[in-house]
Amino acid sequence: MNQHNYVVIMAGGVGSRFWPYSRTAKPKQFLDILNTGRSLIQMTYDRFRKLAPAENIFIVTNEDYAELVAEQLPDLDKEQILTEPVRRNTAPCVAYASYKIRKKDPSPEACMIVAPSDHAIFNEGEFISRLELAMTSARQNDRLLTMGIKPTRPETGYGYIQYLSNEGDEVKKVKTFTEKPQLELAETFIKSGDFVWNAGIFIWSVPSITAAFEQHMPELAELFEEATPRLFGEGEGDAIRETYALCKNISIDYGIMEHAENVYTVLGDFGWTDLGSWASLHEQSPRDEQENAVSGDVLLYDTQNSLIRLPKDKLAIIQGLDGYLVTEEDGVLIICRKDQDQQFREFIADVKSKKGDKYL
Amino acid sequence: MNQHNYVVIMAGGVGSRFWPYSRTAKPKQFLDILNTGRSLIQMTYDRFRKLAPAENIFIVTNEDYAELVAEQLPDLDKEQILTEPVRRNTAPCVAYASYKIRKKDPSPEACMIVAPSDHAIFNEGEFISRLELAMTSARQNDRLLTMGIKPTRPETGYGYIQYLSNEGDEVKKVKTFTEKPQLELAETFIKSGDFVWNAGIFIWSVPSITAAFEQHMPELAELFEEATPRLFGEGEGDAIRETYALCKNISIDYGIMEHAENVYTVLGDFGWTDLGSWASLHEQSPRDEQENAVSGDVLLYDTQNSLIRLPKDKLAIIQGLDGYLVTEEDGVLIICRKDQDQQFREFIADVKSKKGDKYL
Repeated sequence: MNQHNYVVIMAGGVGSRFWPYSRTAKPKQFLDILNTGRSLIQMTYDRFRKLAPAENIFIVTNEDYAELVAEQLPDLDKEQILTEPVRRNTAPCVAYASYKIRKKDPSPEACMIVAPSDHAIFNEGEFISRLELAMTSARQNDRLLTMGIKPTRPETGYGYIQYLSNEGDEVKKVKTFTEKPQLELAETFIKSGDFVWNAGIFIWSVPSITAAFEQHMPELAELFEEATPRLFGEGEGDAIRETYALCKNISIDYGIMEHAENVYTVLGDFGWTDLGSWASLHEQSPRDEQENAVSGDVLLYDTQNSLIRLPKDKLAIIQGLDGYLVTEEDGVLIICRKDQDQQFREFIADVKSKKGDKYL
Repeated sequence: MNQHNYVVIMAGGVGSRFWPYSRTAKPKQFLDILNTGRSLIQMTYDRFRKLAPAENIFIVTNEDYAELVAEQLPDLDKEQILTEPVRRNTAPCVAYASYKIRKKDPSPEACMIVAPSDHAIFNEGEFISRLELAMTSARQNDRLLTMGIKPTRPETGYGYIQYLSNEGDEVKKVKTFTEKPQLELAETFIKSGDFVWNAGIFIWSVPSITAAFEQHMPELAELFEEATPRLFGEGEGDAIRETYALCKNISIDYGIMEHAENVYTVLGDFGWTDLGSWASLHEQSPRDEQENAVSGDVLLYDTQNSLIRLPKDKLAIIQGLDGYLVTEEDGVLIICRKDQDQQFREFIADVKSKKGDKYL
């Protein structure tokens, strides 16, 4: 394993779509959503341990979750947990990690993967080998790489990447990034064959990404350049608080990837999902013959295509549901159509306005 | 109030259709099904206190529920709770009460009402006045009277009584009793105009009913005749256990009412329901504009015609249900179509076979 391999796991999200299972105090990445006995962030960490030495794995998270991270990943040194004082989207998060890694390892060999903490990967061997390929490409060339997932359906919940199909074999030059499309457009993307899903997984050398910050986000680069002397020291917390107070809220996609000329994508096909909704969790879970994914003590009658996730200490009898989510967590029961994910924002807003923060 | 008025409330039922709210250990009549603050048996008792002196109200129940009755109706003397050692349907139950009342009050004026403990009456004034009319008729003539409820729909869940329409004004001679009909037949009954629902409420003088037992069920009459010397004494429990061991399982309708010549019905229209199902509870409960009857802390979205009854200490968010029952009680959650009452037997049988008696 290359000692200059680094991994940055982004774990600051709130995950409101899995409420009430995920709460503000314990969002999705800290939950054992897949019933494996390990939370998503633990599974993500385990996966990346095959690509980088333990001491080279960094978690960026909100201050509020630093303790949870330390609890769930006890092998981490305190230095490896980067805490953000406020949420400023992914560009400041990536900059913080990149400048910190550069200070620790100024070698031109230093290469990093940036990835979300709350996705699921089903073919881990393939995943690892695609990332190794990407890191080799990133080390050999000044390239910003992103993992492009082979789409299996015209999903409207993901961003898409269009690549130049005649260039390269497995590492393709990116033509455009596209935000979440309408269904008709998504169908066109799938048919055209040169679009892949944007999984938010990035691979680049430390020199390439810091150069990209300097070129495309010079103000941000300067802020972190100024903070660098205090990184890895007692003043790091103060430095980061001061820096974040001046950072704009901007994503790495919008700040760099959509503008840079040297953006490439590695095509991957390893069973990926962002687990962005109950519907996607249903899709990724083992199901019975009636396509029900069930956990808990449940008797089902005339019920299909449903995701049922109930506490083990209660008995549930469910009859006559098709395509529903039934879940209960910490005193909140939800019964709703599984495909109505966009309603969760409304549910949560209503609960907040009518019941206060007690249930959030 | 006539000091010879007696009321016998039958409270031995198990009420499986309201499971899991009702349990073997605490059936429907002991529950505050209507959310009034009083259980059904308490409401029944309160209602009949307007017709009979407190000491003339008797409850017949199973041995298992004697304590519950005493708890819920603390004004009752121990003598007023008649406990059945085994379930033998309504004929032995009525005989036990009739012979006991005859011993207490041998006057020919003694007149009794027999009624279930778990029905709901919405116009109590009208109910009382119809019963007073029936008692007057029972005292003046050797008649066995039953309350005939003016039907509001072709209900297939009730028995029907056909009366001779040209005889009498408000007290009609009964032509036939009919078991629960198929829908088509029920519709014919409604159209014909001379059918009423059999509410299982009976009115007769003590001499008339004991005479009817002697004529139509002479074995049963003899058994209770023999037990009479031990009633109101220390030996009552033993006498009743011996008697019940010899009783056949037979209803008062089948044993007497369907055969006797002197059967009359008093037409009543006072908002009656046997609360025999969740659907009928939904019908009898206050509902919102979308026809939902809700108790508990619930936020509803796109939900109609549903009965939702959840513990107050949890929050529920329910979306996209039409015509469902959602209820939870003591660790059992049920979500099912409201009109699938017949499924409850299957649910309970499955729970019994798969989970044992823990939840019953």
